[in-house]
Amino acid sequence: MKLKVPTQQLQSALHKVLGVVSTRTTIPVLSNVWVKSKDGRLTLATTDLEVSCATSIAAEIETEGEITLPAKRFDLLARNLLGDNVSVDVGADFSTQLRCGAGRFRIMGMDASEFPKEGEFQEERRLTLTARDFGKILRKIAYCVSTDQTRYVLNGILVSVREGNCTAVATDGRRLALVEKILDDATPATEGDAILPIKVVKELQRLLDVDGELTIRFSAARAVFAVGDTTLTTKLVEGTYPNYRQVIPASFKNSVVLPRQTFLSVLSSVSTAVADTTASVKFKLEPGKVTLSAASTEVPEGVNEFEVSYSGDPVTIAFNPNFLKEPLQSLECDEITMRFNDEFKPVVLLGDEGFLCVIMPMRN
Amino acid sequence: MKLKVPTQQLQSALHKVLGVVSTRTTIPVLSNVWVKSKDGRLTLATTDLEVSCATSIAAEIETEGEITLPAKRFDLLARNLLGDNVSVDVGADFSTQLRCGAGRFRIMGMDASEFPKEGEFQEERRLTLTARDFGKILRKIAYCVSTDQTRYVLNGILVSVREGNCTAVATDGRRLALVEKILDDATPATEGDAILPIKVVKELQRLLDVDGELTIRFSAARAVFAVGDTTLTTKLVEGTYPNYRQVIPASFKNSVVLPRQTFLSVLSSVSTAVADTTASVKFKLEPGKVTLSAASTEVPEGVNEFEVSYSGDPVTIAFNPNFLKEPLQSLECDEITMRFNDEFKPVVLLGDEGFLCVIMPMRN
Repeated sequence: MKLKVPTQQLQSALHKVLGVVSTRTTIPVLSNVWVKSKDGRLTLATTDLEVSCATSIAAEIETEGEITLPAKRFDLLARNLLGDNVSVDVGADFSTQLRCGAGRFRIMGMDASEFPKEGEFQEERRLTLTARDFGKILRKIAYCVSTDQTRYVLNGILVSVREGNCTAVATDGRRLALVEKILDDATPATEGDAILPIKVVKELQRLLDVDGELTIRFSAARAVFAVGDTTLTTKLVEGTYPNYRQVIPASFKNSVVLPRQTFLSVLSSVSTAVADTTASVKFKLEPGKVTLSAASTEVPEGVNEFEVSYSGDPVTIAFNPNFLKEPLQSLECDEITMRFNDEFKPVVLLGDEGFLCVIMPMRN
Repeated sequence: MKLKVPTQQLQSALHKVLGVVSTRTTIPVLSNVWVKSKDGRLTLATTDLEVSCATSIAAEIETEGEITLPAKRFDLLARNLLGDNVSVDVGADFSTQLRCGAGRFRIMGMDASEFPKEGEFQEERRLTLTARDFGKILRKIAYCVSTDQTRYVLNGILVSVREGNCTAVATDGRRLALVEKILDDATPATEGDAILPIKVVKELQRLLDVDGELTIRFSAARAVFAVGDTTLTTKLVEGTYPNYRQVIPASFKNSVVLPRQTFLSVLSSVSTAVADTTASVKFKLEPGKVTLSAASTEVPEGVNEFEVSYSGDPVTIAFNPNFLKEPLQSLECDEITMRFNDEFKPVVLLGDEGFLCVIMPMRN
């Protein structure tokens, strides 16, 4: 294999696929990046056997071929290259030479045949979305994903397509966040549910901060995300996601519109009083104002307030402060709406762009 | 004690003294910041019994007094305050209330009498320097300080005043860096040696990035650094610093002027080939060019070169790449001068503003 590519493009391609490489693995080839040159393109691919990533760039190819190279080391070398173009030349013994400017670097590769290949993909349905939009949807709910390994269906994000809507849902059993989005090109054939593992969700958030379209293709057990020249493939979480609709209260006695940034700042000032994670912040709503207060052994008192437009009955609800902070931080809108019944029943926060979050109050 | 101060000034004063607070201490009061209001000023002080820091800001004082407050918690509360001014009100039971805007926070303090006080300071001599200049001097040599606990005199920086010069020196036995600065106001009375522990050196680097004068006062066992309204006090390292002058070769056969940034980039590209810390980078100097090369088991080859103006005999010297990288990174000048005799004898790097560094070559 022998080829030449622009240094900067090689660096950015390596950056894209590097997130998937596992640092601790008992299978040496999984620490490597698969490098393949064919039909005028250089393709880089990585996998941890659950999630895999591949990207390609245009290359000036003299000889086609493939090899795998140690990912972290290849990346370190590439990042320190000095010169506009780099030539890659693989010898018969997998010893690979990089040349850039006056620099020459040799790196030992492994046979590409050892690199695990994806099995055949039986596409059942596909979705098309704006890449950045789907990235934002994931960011608005990802903090709700459960880390409890015994509830493995909750260790991912549900992407459910029903009746022209795409709904992304995350929950850890004590709170739930979802974003509902109307699809432009929905047909009955696109309907279905899939649970994305949290690892691919994290990689997607990194990858989707670009202009352009995202195509998601689903098979029974896998999903492929394609944006530009990059694809992420993941196994889906097996199992059935719980019926999240029944968690959302059907009716509310009252509601209040809250200024998002002010609510967040006041909450942050008060929650400094909550040193231990079991303590709650009290949300006291009365006509004209919200008072937040917290108490713990270390800081016996923290109280702050802000003005709101509200004229209903006074109510005091106790929350885990992080359950409020995380949605407030993830949103971008100026105002959110809080809907509630009483201090024991689930409370709902509504943001813009189809965001909804259900939070269980704490009992003191 | 009862007073009012601008929130931002309290935040920045806390930030200044917080670096000294040790996170793990068996003496609870050392996790606290001493807060004292007197004569129209609020003073904050912290200590770890080796280094202590104090700073003061103008305050509107209603009642004078003192207390100690948990440093990290006080800082966290202060950083999240919403409002221009904060009032501090200490109750009889050391319970302290902060009020800022509509926010009220209570924090439990401890009796100020438990806070360790500095003993009397017997000033023997003093120096005056530009704060930023002394900060830069420390930054240019601090990476050379030994971390070998058995050679405790080398665990600090020597500040030696002799014949109108102030010389700051650091060495770990395999390399040495120094900066020599002519003092404007030197007298025989200012002469003397002192070894500053690395902890105060780190705090000073943080503190000295400001305009203004730095006054250093020395007693037999301590030094006090005063800049603006802030003072850092440190115990000096006891013992005699080795005679560093004898490490600097008296004469050199040859020398070459090297472009600092280019040297650093080429060195960084080549040293990626050096995965293990025992491997060296070969510096090959011949008329018109420098070639750097490295080899290790992981990357069997890394070679790069750059042009220089040199017409002497060719020479190849092996270096620990970090011993070159660290001085190159710490300097700001465009060019450095390398002086040498042969591949076995110590090499000297000269930068601007009195910088000199001695590096022992590696033997391969």
